[in-house]
Amino acid sequence: MSSAIFFKAIEQEIARTQYGESPVELYEPIAYLMSLGGKRMRPAICLMAASIFSDDWQKATKPALGVEVFHNFTLMHDDIMDAAPLRRGQPTVHEKWNSSVAILSGDVMLVCAYELMTAVKDNIFKKVIRRFNRTAAEVCEGQQLDMNFASRNDVSEEEYINMIRLKTSVLLGFALELGGMIAETSEANTQLLYEIGTNIGIGFQLKDDILDVYGDPEKFGKQVGGDIIENKKTFLLIEALAQAKGKPEEKELAQWLSAQSFDKAEKVKAVTNIYDTLGIKQMAESKMNEFFSKGLNDLERLEAPAERKKPLLDIIYMLIEREN
Amino acid sequence: MSSAIFFKAIEQEIARTQYGESPVELYEPIAYLMSLGGKRMRPAICLMAASIFSDDWQKATKPALGVEVFHNFTLMHDDIMDAAPLRRGQPTVHEKWNSSVAILSGDVMLVCAYELMTAVKDNIFKKVIRRFNRTAAEVCEGQQLDMNFASRNDVSEEEYINMIRLKTSVLLGFALELGGMIAETSEANTQLLYEIGTNIGIGFQLKDDILDVYGDPEKFGKQVGGDIIENKKTFLLIEALAQAKGKPEEKELAQWLSAQSFDKAEKVKAVTNIYDTLGIKQMAESKMNEFFSKGLNDLERLEAPAERKKPLLDIIYMLIEREN
Repeated sequence: MSSAIFFKAIEQEIARTQYGESPVELYEPIAYLMSLGGKRMRPAICLMAASIFSDDWQKATKPALGVEVFHNFTLMHDDIMDAAPLRRGQPTVHEKWNSSVAILSGDVMLVCAYELMTAVKDNIFKKVIRRFNRTAAEVCEGQQLDMNFASRNDVSEEEYINMIRLKTSVLLGFALELGGMIAETSEANTQLLYEIGTNIGIGFQLKDDILDVYGDPEKFGKQVGGDIIENKKTFLLIEALAQAKGKPEEKELAQWLSAQSFDKAEKVKAVTNIYDTLGIKQMAESKMNEFFSKGLNDLERLEAPAERKKPLLDIIYMLIEREN
Repeated sequence: MSSAIFFKAIEQEIARTQYGESPVELYEPIAYLMSLGGKRMRPAICLMAASIFSDDWQKATKPALGVEVFHNFTLMHDDIMDAAPLRRGQPTVHEKWNSSVAILSGDVMLVCAYELMTAVKDNIFKKVIRRFNRTAAEVCEGQQLDMNFASRNDVSEEEYINMIRLKTSVLLGFALELGGMIAETSEANTQLLYEIGTNIGIGFQLKDDILDVYGDPEKFGKQVGGDIIENKKTFLLIEALAQAKGKPEEKELAQWLSAQSFDKAEKVKAVTNIYDTLGIKQMAESKMNEFFSKGLNDLERLEAPAERKKPLLDIIYMLIEREN
């Protein structure tokens, strides 16, 4: 089966879903944010996981959309906290409306995600909600850690990996696990699906960090070097701070990090040079490959015919090779 | 049975509940807000409803706390939107920490409320979550309507009652309904419990509006006239705007509403005088009594021995007679 069918099922579900009607200030921002697109990777992999163990994977469509709605809820609230003006090239909800609307509309969006989860069968519903609760709390924990890291210069690699595991990866893990639960596969397979998702998710985020510095400007879609300009604590910066200790790059990096006014292009070039000198790109790629490999190995171990796993395998390779 | 036992059960549950550990910025504000007190009316009436139909009402304690946690989540987010400096006389979460913490901590608090709901038995869990979802969405709708009303001068009595039904009352309705569901009483009784809660809730909010103007300053706890100072669209103001049409009070009221600088005490006195002239207090009391009576009548109709209903009846009378 081709991957496209799963993405199509999600887009169709999004097109027919009504989140609520009145007052419009509450529900329009939900439809707006959901209409801005995105890769729809989380719900698609949920359907793929379900399809590994069940021909009736369509029954996972609403809960899968719940994962996507949850993801977009976190974007709506994160954008307020980050004072981000744009999301997918369009005004963020708090910019287009205001912060109160973005808070409240986000709240009801989280409720909508829970409502979409009610589409699973009664016998697995409590298990699904417990796992969803845990995942949702962890995503919030990850966002809080990310904010905490902004004012720290001593974040360790381990802390960083834990933060992105919480903020990004557990939701990919849950998306796959949810597909497995809905297909009512074994506990062992469901657990393995979760592991695959979290490891792929960490690899995915490390790829993000690498692309932000080393992406092809023609293909990347965003400004290359954005993380460097903002001193964002990515894997690359954390590794560079560690590797630079006692070397001439230590002072140079510190100066760029504390610079109040600078030419953006010059800073991006200089910090990228420091990364190159220290071999940071290779370290990040090696760490990224470690997590992708774990994910691929676990997918190999999953007890199912290879052709059933093919769509998920294709997506993972797409994530590994992506350039934007 | 005395009402006190239910309040005590809730306080004990609050004392032993951990919402999460790390990062502290995420979970401390939850414990902080929950520790500021409040009447704990919602969880208490949930337990009372359960005790009408089951001796094992303690099994409703965690879900009842879920209702209280949900209520406090709405306070945490509403306080950001209202830029409120104080809550129960103490700094609000966004003041004590910051807005990002209040948004994110509130989000995880909503998740905690869902997690507390998982304590109900599997056979009623999906029904409970569906009703909780609907209620949560309606509370958000009510808050959005309340914000919308701030910039309107043509809010009708009907619109206002609908707004407070959504913002305040449906959660009281759900609290009672939840107690009934957990005690596994009949659908008819559960529905009746919901009706009792929403009607009492509307009466409760109208009492709030009345006390804010006519409360005894010695007993009220808050500044009497706060709503008048802020031009808050309460039942009294909406009714006054309607009743003043074509009378000398119309212009006088409009002047006070548009006044940019004024002596607070003078405005409170003048607007209260307008209310008195137009007989607004009596109208508000009559409307309030209408809803309390509906609630009391429905409680009477509830198929259960009178002594079982006594704690709930006592609470309703306490709400009717309260002075703060």
